[in-house]
Amino acid sequence: MNVHIVFAHPEPRSLNGQLKDDAVAHLQRSGHQVQVSDLYRMQWKPTLDAQDTIAPLRGERFNPITDARYAFDNAMQSSDIAAEQEKLIWADVVIFQFPLWWFSMPAIMKGWFDRVYANGFAYGVGEHNETHWGDRYGEGTLAGKRAMLLVSTGGWESHYSARGINGSIDDILFPIQHGMLFYPGFDVLPPMLIYRAEKTDDARYIEYRQQLLHRLDTLDETPPLPFRRQNYGDYEIPSLTLRPELAEGKSGLRMHME
Amino acid sequence: MNVHIVFAHPEPRSLNGQLKDDAVAHLQRSGHQVQVSDLYRMQWKPTLDAQDTIAPLRGERFNPITDARYAFDNAMQSSDIAAEQEKLIWADVVIFQFPLWWFSMPAIMKGWFDRVYANGFAYGVGEHNETHWGDRYGEGTLAGKRAMLLVSTGGWESHYSARGINGSIDDILFPIQHGMLFYPGFDVLPPMLIYRAEKTDDARYIEYRQQLLHRLDTLDETPPLPFRRQNYGDYEIPSLTLRPELAEGKSGLRMHME
Repeated sequence: MNVHIVFAHPEPRSLNGQLKDDAVAHLQRSGHQVQVSDLYRMQWKPTLDAQDTIAPLRGERFNPITDARYAFDNAMQSSDIAAEQEKLIWADVVIFQFPLWWFSMPAIMKGWFDRVYANGFAYGVGEHNETHWGDRYGEGTLAGKRAMLLVSTGGWESHYSARGINGSIDDILFPIQHGMLFYPGFDVLPPMLIYRAEKTDDARYIEYRQQLLHRLDTLDETPPLPFRRQNYGDYEIPSLTLRPELAEGKSGLRMHME
Repeated sequence: MNVHIVFAHPEPRSLNGQLKDDAVAHLQRSGHQVQVSDLYRMQWKPTLDAQDTIAPLRGERFNPITDARYAFDNAMQSSDIAAEQEKLIWADVVIFQFPLWWFSMPAIMKGWFDRVYANGFAYGVGEHNETHWGDRYGEGTLAGKRAMLLVSTGGWESHYSARGINGSIDDILFPIQHGMLFYPGFDVLPPMLIYRAEKTDDARYIEYRQQLLHRLDTLDETPPLPFRRQNYGDYEIPSLTLRPELAEGKSGLRMHME
């Protein structure tokens, strides 16, 4: 398989850095091809702006939606963006690894999504009509590929449990797993989570490493999260609200899973 | 009042830029003091790294938690970070204005939180004991201040409704409103939301402007979102799970509101 790891941690000798190295070594030993986008090492530019296109602006002012589209359609994107899109096309599986900072990813990785997920590539794809509202949420450029989060937290597992004060980890990660991964077509594997990362001693590290290698050995057989696909009858079009008879009386983001 | 606007949009002549200018002018006309952190104009550094402290590293490798703490405690933070912390201390109200990109804020603003919300300032504050688990979620450095989001989306309002495919806007914004604003002590006012921002014509712009000025005129009387405070009996300590008799049988992030 072709595996792409998108990695964001400022310190290569951190727990995250060590586990990333372990993953690369294990995947290569297992005969897979691996590419790593180590965003800190690459000094990835996080900020989406008018420098992301080499084309003249389409209007009087920079429009992130239309200018990105023109650049994508005409191969006039900044080369760092195009290179990451090529890695995504190449990959069978993409792993996003990061420490959870303020209940989301580090800015440098958010900027990877802001810029690489261009109009025409990750959104604005497919027809919009009465029965099909674009290729998204289960369809799209990245359909047929798998993605998985590998996330460490400082906080305790119970604080992220179903009734934990931070919000359940499934809900906290929904904007990422559903909104960034399922949206352009990925099948999303359950995340691997490391809580209280600062408390990792040698014994725990070995456990995490074992768990990670097992996840890597089972990437192609792990059932993905059962997010509902958009264009297959569960949602009204174009309101894109869940049909009343589904998850009746339920509230919360869980309703978007089968 | 002292109002601090943290603004992230790459194009000053955008709808967001226009509304930000309208807000500043209106607040000043009304006799308030205003400071704006226009992150794109400031070329804000989004990436948290070892350059954020002028102190030597505390250990053999960069640790974002302990090195930020040492720098904060010893006035050795990067000056751009300290300046933003001072604006927060100065402010009575902070408005965060941004377009919703991939169900969160632009990277440049995420990097504002990653860096300005240092250990000792926004987290790691207060005692941890059997009845009090740090000053957070309703207590903390920013307690007594108010915060409000002003967010534009490309998508339709129904797609963000209670049963909309994107997830309800309340749930999508929970990691921000609860995790970034309520956490260090802000009272969080209901957000002002602009859907389908690309479809804004002159008539709609005037509506949005009126709505915004009304929100600005009522900043001190608008009831905040009723997030449950951590240390006042609703959560078990230290598991920080909601007591079983509260929001019984409910699931979803709504349980964390009274």
